[in-house]
Amino acid sequence: MNRDTNTRTELYELGKYKLLERLSDGIELSSNTIVGHGHDASAMATNSKLALSASGLMLEGVHFNLTYFPLKHLGYKAVVSVLSRLYAMNATPHQVQINMGLSRRFSVENLDELMSGAKLAAQRDGVDIVGIEAVSSYTGLTLSLNALGLCDPDALVSRTGAQEHHLLCLSGRLGAAYLGLQVLERERIAFEANPHAQPQLTGYDYLLERVLKPETRRDVTDNLRQANILPSAMTLVHEGLASALLHICQRSAVGCRVYADRIPIDPQATSLAEEMHIDPLTAAMNGGEDYELLFTVPMDKHETVAALPDISVIGHITTADTGAYLVPSHGDDIRITAQGWNAIAPE
Amino acid sequence: MNRDTNTRTELYELGKYKLLERLSDGIELSSNTIVGHGHDASAMATNSKLALSASGLMLEGVHFNLTYFPLKHLGYKAVVSVLSRLYAMNATPHQVQINMGLSRRFSVENLDELMSGAKLAAQRDGVDIVGIEAVSSYTGLTLSLNALGLCDPDALVSRTGAQEHHLLCLSGRLGAAYLGLQVLERERIAFEANPHAQPQLTGYDYLLERVLKPETRRDVTDNLRQANILPSAMTLVHEGLASALLHICQRSAVGCRVYADRIPIDPQATSLAEEMHIDPLTAAMNGGEDYELLFTVPMDKHETVAALPDISVIGHITTADTGAYLVPSHGDDIRITAQGWNAIAPE
Repeated sequence: MNRDTNTRTELYELGKYKLLERLSDGIELSSNTIVGHGHDASAMATNSKLALSASGLMLEGVHFNLTYFPLKHLGYKAVVSVLSRLYAMNATPHQVQINMGLSRRFSVENLDELMSGAKLAAQRDGVDIVGIEAVSSYTGLTLSLNALGLCDPDALVSRTGAQEHHLLCLSGRLGAAYLGLQVLERERIAFEANPHAQPQLTGYDYLLERVLKPETRRDVTDNLRQANILPSAMTLVHEGLASALLHICQRSAVGCRVYADRIPIDPQATSLAEEMHIDPLTAAMNGGEDYELLFTVPMDKHETVAALPDISVIGHITTADTGAYLVPSHGDDIRITAQGWNAIAPE
Repeated sequence: MNRDTNTRTELYELGKYKLLERLSDGIELSSNTIVGHGHDASAMATNSKLALSASGLMLEGVHFNLTYFPLKHLGYKAVVSVLSRLYAMNATPHQVQINMGLSRRFSVENLDELMSGAKLAAQRDGVDIVGIEAVSSYTGLTLSLNALGLCDPDALVSRTGAQEHHLLCLSGRLGAAYLGLQVLERERIAFEANPHAQPQLTGYDYLLERVLKPETRRDVTDNLRQANILPSAMTLVHEGLASALLHICQRSAVGCRVYADRIPIDPQATSLAEEMHIDPLTAAMNGGEDYELLFTVPMDKHETVAALPDISVIGHITTADTGAYLVPSHGDDIRITAQGWNAIAPE
């Protein structure tokens, strides 16, 4: 966990307050942040806009494995994942709070690395880090993030609002983060069996980047705004496409038909999926951490939306009674179901 | 963990989405909540007020022990603790988000209990529960809460603003939650040694209530407003009075003198502290979870503030170069220092 430096300062050497001072070092605040870190809460000017709040919880061993996940990347990804939720409602994120549960396994330098990634991600999206907090943990690293943003009342987009005949649109390509994780897990197991083995990671650059350094899709909501398209519904794809589709169908009380051959999957993902005997479509439907946007637009926006960079029209909305279906290239339609909750199911 | 019911439904039987539906059952939203649960983020109307956000992280084994902490009380306390941070900035809380890390040790009914307490606390303060989220955990229960509130720009109070000669005021009485926890720990150890032993909890009602069912001090900020007093600085006392004093001194760049005999300690707390050979003043200065408010007011407000219910004037602000000191009844002044971070210090 301590690759970049030879110094190791124990957390108790600094104490909590000096630690928090250090972690917030170099963080500059924008003018709409009225109160930043070092107080009981953060405060933000709103100018009559809506205030949006989204949060995310990441647990070591469940959401990340530090044997192959560099702390800097983890900090970056944690911020990206929570900001993404605000973009998914067409809002602009302005503040992020970072709460950490820390065991004594972690040194001050480890947290410097984590924060360097978090600061980079916040800076990239023009977001203030406010309210860093740390508590003790006996069981590794817990990351709890909260993002606060603003949105004009008439620009807000939620999961509600999709109507029959609206087009289902998707940004980017799916399944790569899930498959990138499989590569990392495979190499971890190979390394544990033979610590002298060289990791086989060449040729998977895109997959690894997708799992280790995802980016927000601020560009997508910016492009939609510039094209004068207000989606009728939108949601974040972070637990697979199936969950995202069902969220929109349930909250909008509609059904959908999605065409399998229109779901964009990267060639690297397809090639690795075949090598690992995983159906690439399954990785797209049920894999996680894509951080792409799924949204719906009225049919008369077809040409405009199809002309936007990195957007695919993958299907359309139907009435609720027809259900949510995936239409494969060959064979019968497949009913879309949400994945069970594997990690806490019986073994 | 399952006292109130004989039914046990495993989490995987419901699956994540049905579980979240169930947990949000009966939650009604007020009109300023534009988007509540079931979306990527919550949204709140602001009417040009400031939007405030505060979060808190509670880990099983560190912040609570479920062998004696009923889940309903835990849910209640988790909400109280995060709303308290907004009151400490003179804001009105409007929304709370609840993120849970859940191991398979927990049943659906367990979470019903937890949520019943959370709902009660939210209802008491007129706050909407928005955005319940659950992730898997291998290591017990993790609770991550975030509260969102509003404040008129000219009513905002932070830790910055205390000036020389301002009076240091405190709501309620200190140390009781810490001592209540010692009672519960003592009985847990006695029970583990002899499971037939009856717990000795009589006579400690106030202490137990303070640790198991703390309340927000909304009444304090309401009373201050009615008395036309805007504190110059304010903070939440949740990690002992010493930390709270140092927060204000550091952020306001001032020092302070606090008189030991003016720090309000409940007779039950004093009596138990003596029985357990703990200095009651140490419990007040360094114990935690009081959820009281520490604030400063200009000297000309002395009469008005002293007349408010449940408020004690415990000292005054000095210049930064004189430092932060506790003045005991006898003997030399004691420099106030923040506690180290015990849980991750070397054993």
